[in-house]
Amino acid sequence: MSRNTLGKNLTVTIFGESHGPAVGAVIDGLPSGIRIDMDLMTEQMNRRKAAGKISTARHEKDLPEFISGVKDGITEGTPLTLLIRNENVRRSDYAGHLKTPRPSHADYSGHIRYGGYEDASGGGHFSGRLTAPLTAAGAICLQMLRDKGILIGTHIRRLHGIEERHFDETDLLNDIQTVNSRHFAVLQEEKEAEMKALIEQAAAGKDSVGGILETAVYGLEAGIGEPMFDSLESRISQAVFSVPAVKGIQFGSGFAFAGMYGSEANDPFVIRDGKVQTETNHNGGINGGISNGMPVVFETVIKPTPSIGIRQRTVDLDKNENTTIEIGGRHDPAIIHRARPVIDAVTAIVLADLLMEKYGRAWFEGENA
Amino acid sequence: MSRNTLGKNLTVTIFGESHGPAVGAVIDGLPSGIRIDMDLMTEQMNRRKAAGKISTARHEKDLPEFISGVKDGITEGTPLTLLIRNENVRRSDYAGHLKTPRPSHADYSGHIRYGGYEDASGGGHFSGRLTAPLTAAGAICLQMLRDKGILIGTHIRRLHGIEERHFDETDLLNDIQTVNSRHFAVLQEEKEAEMKALIEQAAAGKDSVGGILETAVYGLEAGIGEPMFDSLESRISQAVFSVPAVKGIQFGSGFAFAGMYGSEANDPFVIRDGKVQTETNHNGGINGGISNGMPVVFETVIKPTPSIGIRQRTVDLDKNENTTIEIGGRHDPAIIHRARPVIDAVTAIVLADLLMEKYGRAWFEGENA
Amino acid sequence: MSRNTLGKNLTVTIFGESHGPAVGAVIDGLPSGIRIDMDLMTEQMNRRKAAGKISTARHEKDLPEFISGVKDGITEGTPLTLLIRNENVRRSDYAGHLKTPRPSHADYSGHIRYGGYEDASGGGHFSGRLTAPLTAAGAICLQMLRDKGILIGTHIRRLHGIEERHFDETDLLNDIQTVNSRHFAVLQEEKEAEMKALIEQAAAGKDSVGGILETAVYGLEAGIGEPMFDSLESRISQAVFSVPAVKGIQFGSGFAFAGMYGSEANDPFVIRDGKVQTETNHNGGINGGISNGMPVVFETVIKPTPSIGIRQRTVDLDKNENTTIEIGGRHDPAIIHRARPVIDAVTAIVLADLLMEKYGRAWFEGENA
Amino acid sequence: MSRNTLGKNLTVTIFGESHGPAVGAVIDGLPSGIRIDMDLMTEQMNRRKAAGKISTARHEKDLPEFISGVKDGITEGTPLTLLIRNENVRRSDYAGHLKTPRPSHADYSGHIRYGGYEDASGGGHFSGRLTAPLTAAGAICLQMLRDKGILIGTHIRRLHGIEERHFDETDLLNDIQTVNSRHFAVLQEEKEAEMKALIEQAAAGKDSVGGILETAVYGLEAGIGEPMFDSLESRISQAVFSVPAVKGIQFGSGFAFAGMYGSEANDPFVIRDGKVQTETNHNGGINGGISNGMPVVFETVIKPTPSIGIRQRTVDLDKNENTTIEIGGRHDPAIIHRARPVIDAVTAIVLADLLMEKYGRAWFEGENA
Repeated sequence: MSRNTLGKNLTVTIFGESHGPAVGAVIDGLPSGIRIDMDLMTEQMNRRKAAGKISTARHEKDLPEFISGVKDGITEGTPLTLLIRNENVRRSDYAGHLKTPRPSHADYSGHIRYGGYEDASGGGHFSGRLTAPLTAAGAICLQMLRDKGILIGTHIRRLHGIEERHFDETDLLNDIQTVNSRHFAVLQEEKEAEMKALIEQAAAGKDSVGGILETAVYGLEAGIGEPMFDSLESRISQAVFSVPAVKGIQFGSGFAFAGMYGSEANDPFVIRDGKVQTETNHNGGINGGISNGMPVVFETVIKPTPSIGIRQRTVDLDKNENTTIEIGGRHDPAIIHRARPVIDAVTAIVLADLLMEKYGRAWFEGENA
Repeated sequence: MSRNTLGKNLTVTIFGESHGPAVGAVIDGLPSGIRIDMDLMTEQMNRRKAAGKISTARHEKDLPEFISGVKDGITEGTPLTLLIRNENVRRSDYAGHLKTPRPSHADYSGHIRYGGYEDASGGGHFSGRLTAPLTAAGAICLQMLRDKGILIGTHIRRLHGIEERHFDETDLLNDIQTVNSRHFAVLQEEKEAEMKALIEQAAAGKDSVGGILETAVYGLEAGIGEPMFDSLESRISQAVFSVPAVKGIQFGSGFAFAGMYGSEANDPFVIRDGKVQTETNHNGGINGGISNGMPVVFETVIKPTPSIGIRQRTVDLDKNENTTIEIGGRHDPAIIHRARPVIDAVTAIVLADLLMEKYGRAWFEGENA
Repeated sequence: MSRNTLGKNLTVTIFGESHGPAVGAVIDGLPSGIRIDMDLMTEQMNRRKAAGKISTARHEKDLPEFISGVKDGITEGTPLTLLIRNENVRRSDYAGHLKTPRPSHADYSGHIRYGGYEDASGGGHFSGRLTAPLTAAGAICLQMLRDKGILIGTHIRRLHGIEERHFDETDLLNDIQTVNSRHFAVLQEEKEAEMKALIEQAAAGKDSVGGILETAVYGLEAGIGEPMFDSLESRISQAVFSVPAVKGIQFGSGFAFAGMYGSEANDPFVIRDGKVQTETNHNGGINGGISNGMPVVFETVIKPTPSIGIRQRTVDLDKNENTTIEIGGRHDPAIIHRARPVIDAVTAIVLADLLMEKYGRAWFEGENA
Repeated sequence: MSRNTLGKNLTVTIFGESHGPAVGAVIDGLPSGIRIDMDLMTEQMNRRKAAGKISTARHEKDLPEFISGVKDGITEGTPLTLLIRNENVRRSDYAGHLKTPRPSHADYSGHIRYGGYEDASGGGHFSGRLTAPLTAAGAICLQMLRDKGILIGTHIRRLHGIEERHFDETDLLNDIQTVNSRHFAVLQEEKEAEMKALIEQAAAGKDSVGGILETAVYGLEAGIGEPMFDSLESRISQAVFSVPAVKGIQFGSGFAFAGMYGSEANDPFVIRDGKVQTETNHNGGINGGISNGMPVVFETVIKPTPSIGIRQRTVDLDKNENTTIEIGGRHDPAIIHRARPVIDAVTAIVLADLLMEKYGRAWFEGENA
């Protein structure tokens, strides 16, 4: 599937516009009998929410309302539909965007795609707001995986000029638990203040910054994925590139492979604790598109938020001439910390779907009730 | 779709094993009435083929045999099935790989995935040989796009330590035509000898090298792609990661976005030649997952070929103990130049499919007869 | 696609339970720029609604609320989500059904399918109520087809012992317009009172009746459909069997073919009004799965509503023993007249999707704005 | 999926033309480790083959050649491709059909669909010959189901004027084994000669006859199928209508429901042998689209073969005028006995796919090795 639906056995369909009545998701193919962990969902939703000086001033409760598929907090196995109401909508902020498309936004390309019939307010269907239902859907998948011993964590490996260390694969479970216990996604606690200061500084200059997220999956068995179009890399990348502002992804050593010899790049197999493992993990846990039992590790680049307060050049679509734009309204000087639970979410959806293809719905069904 | 099938309206299903009777493809949803350009197909197939000192010694004719869907060289509109016979197969070269999986190959993960029932000879279904039918299928799509004024080109932007210039977007048509006229994918002719020497040097050391391919699409109209899971980046990346050895992809400025401010990263819109364009193209022709009319540009990292002659550590799966392996047989010291037509191919399949979703099969149908 | 999603390029996802907050649909792949004909939608919704003595006493407004994808009454091209609130819900009527499954209902099979986690109230996700969003989605497709000169009509060809004439294919446009102008789906006006009396009589006996719907499509061009799994019969039947109570479908002469010789059954081609037509239409407008330009005609059997007031034997699932049940609550003594707009709807969705595969989204896009 | 591909987790893609080099199938998603029962496959293939006076004179060996996905007779889990070579092809028999379309054949509708580029010889992609690879693919699924205790059988319940008894559901296992032990699909042995005589009589008159097949599934657990578009009826009917000459399908009492009261039609639940069963099986084992544990029973009408020797009226497409046609070449006076293994096949593919969705590939994997 595709367009607004992700997955095959477990499908997530996303709908809504930023300034319409609600955004939401239909999750179909869910096992029945799963008691939804609302703490986990709320936590992930909160991480996606704007907060404090480093985010837009638009605040929303973002509590999903279940329209179908849930009874007494437990999945029924029928399509689960959740709505997240759009509150605090100020349409006027965005008036005129159609006429003068914001640089590097979807205003212009979306205008062509939808023939001018799209609701451009607040980015419409392109808004980062659409990641709210995606995050909620992902939270259920994160829970399903967690109950099978599979954990996913994402941290900010780089924010503009500030780097922090990679996940330590020899102590990965601990690292994932650490980052998942924190609202701001760092492994090294001292980086938080540093990064926040940098974001505030960008905001003060009406500018924005980007960075790199690193994601690791702990506990995924070997043998998941397919050699061709369902390679783990194919499926994860397809999902990850649906997250706004993502412009690149690399697995394991990624682009650094370009400078390596095969003798450096190859991951020798070894017996460790009686199990087949690899000594290094340049391949990010994936050989030939299929998990090899090592941690799955990938990095995602998040571009600087295109909505900035600085005056920018653009065009007047009505007059077909050059002009400038100063974007008012509420904007994020960085989106990377808010993108983190969304990357968690899409990764979880992809893995739950692939495991379901192997083991079936029944493997998950009812076990948590 | 997924697994071994790519696409929605135009689907390509890949099958075969390296040392079985044949590899092949079923292409369904093709318009009828297209006279297949066998020169273009042969050219792309030749670029994928092993040749000279810089490639494996295994040579195959690789001429596709049409089993269905083609009459008198013209597509019928029914499923087009093509077979590429495996000749020159020497099974003995690969005996024992199952017992001692080759590092960074799919031997081990595939063994788990297929429960030991897979044909491991020559990489089986994982073999780079599977890219032959993919390239053939892609050639038909390249032709369909070309007839609509859309051209795709791929060059080796980096081979290990050797870089060449990026595509010049102000003269892109010329650059694409230049690289497409060359058997070895360089824009700067003088780089060819340099790169080949480096590959031969790696071969001499029983080692291998990787690099980065840059791909550009000329002539794609604005408005193609979707904001969510059919974003151009989603669809292209899903397809590209099915090509063996690809471990990363970046669109436009890609990972370099991490170091930019929004004010540097944004692409201002301008009126040029009466049309809406962007001054820079950091976003690689894609905003919000949808083409904006600028060239679509992306880079793909190709890891060094994992098959190297140097002795490597691995495990003996039967004895569950560490051992070493020296891989005999025929190998490529670099695969990047052979991956080039495959990247062209999957890009073409994705774009033809997306255009077909917008304009229908009838848009293409019969026009070339 | 499948499960709760119908279609490929134009997809309709249905969700909700009878006694949950709402039922609804997500329609993805819609062209942008279509001003939704609310009169047509309301009319179709009204035909599906319970009314008068011949239906259940449960009455709902059934006005769809648009959550996304519509701005100022015009489709945006983004996923259109509609909700139909469940009002007038009396859960108590259905208490106990899980324990003692209603004969010929989905209570038992659904109980096994969903592991007991399903909401059984009012039939839950199995309820005929789920056809409300399907009808609403279908109304948009009916409109899209109408604007291309394609009309669909369905009448009650048989209600228990009462038959009315078939569509007159020599005057089909008129017949379709006639039936579409009537709230109760008959061609012969005098049959309405007769049929209603029969339904009331069944109701008086706490019993129910079934019948046969005949559907005809006017104006579908030749060449739509595919020889194999997308045969017009395949696609229409898949969709039609999703409508509750349908247990059979036949195209053209259908089961009567079993008694014919080939020489009687074949439809000779003739030139009529300068066009290729067939003299008879035993094949219901479809040869080899593909429309031949003649009216597409099929019949659907609707079984008697399983909810009847008469005491019936069933089992006590808790005690694993035989028992009896007397179903209280609100029920339909016949569902056939209410199924009529649903058959229209699924037929329209299938045809719009197939036409979109041939001509693309752009063929429909924006034209009605 | 659709067009030429059936299924979701287990997919079967059919390709080829009647008079091309081969017809074939790609089966993707197969579990690895299944030793293919070639006896079963050969038996089913033989039942589909022309034989004796009651069939066309065209005889083919029809032995599938495995191109991929099978090693030493055992499935590898990779795409299984099989080819069935077309031998004994006499193109001249069919010359001129494009000009003068055969009544009730796909000649005309296919001509419009494929724009005249189709290979019309022998029916091309529409030929009944395409059911050969479908039957082969189905044989593997029949085996997978058999190993799980699920058996499928199909008999000729009616041939023109000759009827035989229905499956006896109280002794269904025996009935299925009986019919599956016979080359000619009757339950009552004495019917065979009678039916064959009728077919020969039709052949003598250059005419053809049709009839009704009844199919029963033994051993399918309750809970398989979905309430909406994956209802068992939806999935089975979609598949069955891909078989040439099928024009109607009914489940359980089917069209006879139209004359019943609910109180007659409902199937009371009872405890029998400690299990929940139904007393009658008017619903053919399916409630709300989901299996209820009773035998799944359906009937399929097969129209008389349209290829008859009698002179028929048709049109001359070149001259746009009426003319007549006398079809020479090899034809079947009845196709119903040959359609029988094809109905078995598509039913098996559908059920294997649905079970795989519930239990996963791993449920089947490797068990027969």
